[in-house]
Amino acid sequence: MRAVAIVGAGQSAFGDFPDKSIKELFFDAYREMAASVDRDFDPALIEAAYLGNLGSGGFQLGNVSALMTGFVGLPYIHAVRIENACASGGYALAAGAMDILSGTHRVVLAGGVEKMTDVSATRGRYWLGVSGDTEYERLAGTTFAGLYALIAKRHMHEFGTTREQLSLVAVKNHHNGALNPKAQFQREVKLEQAMTSPTVCDPLNLFDCCSTTDGASAVLLCDGEIAKRFTDTPVYVAGFGTSSDYLAIHDRASTTTLEATRRAAARAFRMAGLRPADVDLAEVHDCFTIAELLAYEDLGFCDKGKGGAFLEEGRTALSGDIPVNASGGLKAKGHPIGATGTGQAYEMFRQLRGSADQPARQVKGAEKGLLHNVGGSGGTAAVTILAR
Amino acid sequence: MRAVAIVGAGQSAFGDFPDKSIKELFFDAYREMAASVDRDFDPALIEAAYLGNLGSGGFQLGNVSALMTGFVGLPYIHAVRIENACASGGYALAAGAMDILSGTHRVVLAGGVEKMTDVSATRGRYWLGVSGDTEYERLAGTTFAGLYALIAKRHMHEFGTTREQLSLVAVKNHHNGALNPKAQFQREVKLEQAMTSPTVCDPLNLFDCCSTTDGASAVLLCDGEIAKRFTDTPVYVAGFGTSSDYLAIHDRASTTTLEATRRAAARAFRMAGLRPADVDLAEVHDCFTIAELLAYEDLGFCDKGKGGAFLEEGRTALSGDIPVNASGGLKAKGHPIGATGTGQAYEMFRQLRGSADQPARQVKGAEKGLLHNVGGSGGTAAVTILAR
Repeated sequence: MRAVAIVGAGQSAFGDFPDKSIKELFFDAYREMAASVDRDFDPALIEAAYLGNLGSGGFQLGNVSALMTGFVGLPYIHAVRIENACASGGYALAAGAMDILSGTHRVVLAGGVEKMTDVSATRGRYWLGVSGDTEYERLAGTTFAGLYALIAKRHMHEFGTTREQLSLVAVKNHHNGALNPKAQFQREVKLEQAMTSPTVCDPLNLFDCCSTTDGASAVLLCDGEIAKRFTDTPVYVAGFGTSSDYLAIHDRASTTTLEATRRAAARAFRMAGLRPADVDLAEVHDCFTIAELLAYEDLGFCDKGKGGAFLEEGRTALSGDIPVNASGGLKAKGHPIGATGTGQAYEMFRQLRGSADQPARQVKGAEKGLLHNVGGSGGTAAVTILAR
Repeated sequence: MRAVAIVGAGQSAFGDFPDKSIKELFFDAYREMAASVDRDFDPALIEAAYLGNLGSGGFQLGNVSALMTGFVGLPYIHAVRIENACASGGYALAAGAMDILSGTHRVVLAGGVEKMTDVSATRGRYWLGVSGDTEYERLAGTTFAGLYALIAKRHMHEFGTTREQLSLVAVKNHHNGALNPKAQFQREVKLEQAMTSPTVCDPLNLFDCCSTTDGASAVLLCDGEIAKRFTDTPVYVAGFGTSSDYLAIHDRASTTTLEATRRAAARAFRMAGLRPADVDLAEVHDCFTIAELLAYEDLGFCDKGKGGAFLEEGRTALSGDIPVNASGGLKAKGHPIGATGTGQAYEMFRQLRGSADQPARQVKGAEKGLLHNVGGSGGTAAVTILAR
C-alpha cells in the first residue's frame, strides 16, 4: 500500500484582519507552505487541492476552491471545497490522503481558509448556527455555546467535572498561545480571570469559548515514494479516521461522549497500528473548554469522566507526558473554521520536525502526533495521526 | 488497479416542492436507490457518503452531510459535503470513485441535494451569484445569466452562432423532458415560443435559462470486485476527470471555451482509454442553452464554433448518433444545484441498463455514456464516463 507524506506546511497569522481578503489570507498560507519545502518545490507539480471552508461570512460561498487556487497561480487542477463545518480542514486532509492512496494524483494541497470577523454578531451566530440541526436546534434558539453548555452541564452532573477544571483548559491553552507568534491571543490568562469572566451560556463563560477568527492554512501532501525528493525529513500520515453522528444532540446515544470522535479515533489508530498511549502530543478541538475534556476521554487518553482530573494532574501541559494544544488550540490560537484542521497539521508538522517557533513551545523528541477536528457539536469528526 | 461500479441509483422528482424539506427530498432519492439494487442491499454496508450541496437557500449550511446521512439511518460513516457550485455532484461522484480506488471504503454513496424554491428571487440571485467571483463579477452587478450572456454574445460574434440555434437547444431538451416523469417541466416548447420569450439578459431569454429546482439524487458505488454481489448488470466508472479554471471570466484564456471542461474531458477520456467518438450518449451541463453548444465543442463531439450546426443537423437529438440530455437536461429536467451531477449519473445508469421510464426516451443499445457537470461559469468542471 502507498504511503502519504507531508513535505511542506504554511499558515497565515490567525486573528482579526479587516484589511485582508480571504484570497490574501490563503496566499499567506500558500506562500509559507511553498517556502517551507526544503527543495525542488514547483507549483506545476500540484495536481489537486482540497480546501476546507464554511462560508466566509457569506462573501463567497460557491467555487471557493477555484477562486483560491486560481489566485495563488494553480489553475487547471482538481480543486475541491470540502465542508464539514468546523471539521472541514480535517476532512480536507483525509480527502487529500485518499486521493494519493487512490493513485489519482501524486502531489496534493490540503488547506483551508475562513474570514469571520467581517460579519456582524447576529449574522455570525447565523453562520455558525447553520452547522447545527436547523430545525431542532437553531430555530429553537440554541447557539453553539448553548449546545456545548448542555454538554458541559451534563458532564458536571454525571462526572463531577468542576468549574475550575473548565477554566484550567483556558489557562493552559492561553499559556501555550502566548508562546505562538501566529496565535490570535498571545497572552496568558489567570485562573481567577478565567473563572469569573462574563457568562455566555451557563456554565460556559467568555474564557470557555473560542473566538471568531480570520485565517488560512495549507499543507503539501505527496506520495510517500517521492517524499525524499522534497525533504530529508518528511512527516507521514500514519493513519486517518472519520465518523459522522446524528447532527442533533437529542438523537445521540450519549450527551457526554462524542461518538464521532470515538469512532474516528478507533479507525485512525487501527490504520496506524497504534494505541492512544503511543501518541507523544496532540492538537485537539477545544472550541469550548468542555470540548477539550471530552477529547481526552473520547480519544482514549484517559477514562470517560476523568478528563478534568487528567488536566489537573498536568498530564496535558507542555511539560506533561502528552502535551495537548501546544499551539494554543482553538481557544488561544484561534478558530478560523475551515482552516483549523490543516492549521493543526501545520503545528504538528513543525513540532515533529523540531521547528516550532520558540524553544519554549517545542515538545522535545516527539515522534507521533494526533490531530482531532470536530464538526459542530460532534456531527462529524476527523482524527489524523502523523509520524516522523 | 481496482474498478469502481455503480449498482444502484435513485432520484427524487425534480421541481417545486414547498411541502418537502431537504431531508425528505434526500430520503426520496435514497429510498429509490436502495430499492434499485437487485439483491443483497444492506445499509450497514455503506461506509462513506459524498454529498453535493451548494447552500439549500441558507437553511442548513454546515454539516449537511451528517444531517442527511443521519436522517436516512446512516450514522457513524465517513460523510462529507462536497461543494463546487453547480458541479458539486460531479465532484462527489469523483470523490466516491477515488475513495474506493484508495482502498479506504468498499461501498460508498455519492449524491446531492438542493432546496432552491423556498428562497426569494433576490436572495436566490445572491445564493447563485456567490458561485461567481464576488469581487469582480457579483459585486459589479453580474448575475449568472449575465455571465453566460457574455459568453453567448461572443460565441455569436466569433462563430456566427444564431438565436435560432440557441432556442433549438431548449426545444430539444423540452422534448426529452416531456418524456421524463421526474422532470420539472414535462412539456414541449415550440421554436417560436422559445425564440420570442422575454429577455433575461441579452441575448438570453427565458427559455435559454434553466430554472430553480428542489431535488436530490444518489448512486451507490462499490469496488468492482464485489459489484456482481449486488447485480448482474453493474455500470462501471470507466474514467473520470476534473479541472478548475480561473473563476472570473476576464482572467481566462478564452471567453468561448470552457477550459475546465476541455481538460476534465481529456483526463476522463485518457483514464477510460476512449475518444469522444466512442461515446453513445451524454448528459451535459445546459444551465443555459449556450452552455450546451459549448459542451459539444469542449467535450470534442464537434469542432470549436460548430456547436450550433451540430445541433441543427440533429446529431444530438434522441434519434441522433449521440443523443445529448435524453433526460431533458438542466433546462427541462431541472437543476437542483448539488443534486445535478449525480442526477446525471442516475439517468445514465438507467439508460445503460435499458431501464429508462418510457421507451420513447430509451437510447437503444447504448454502452458508453458521458456525464458533464460545470461549476458556475466554468470555474470547475467534472466529466465522468460510464460503461456497462
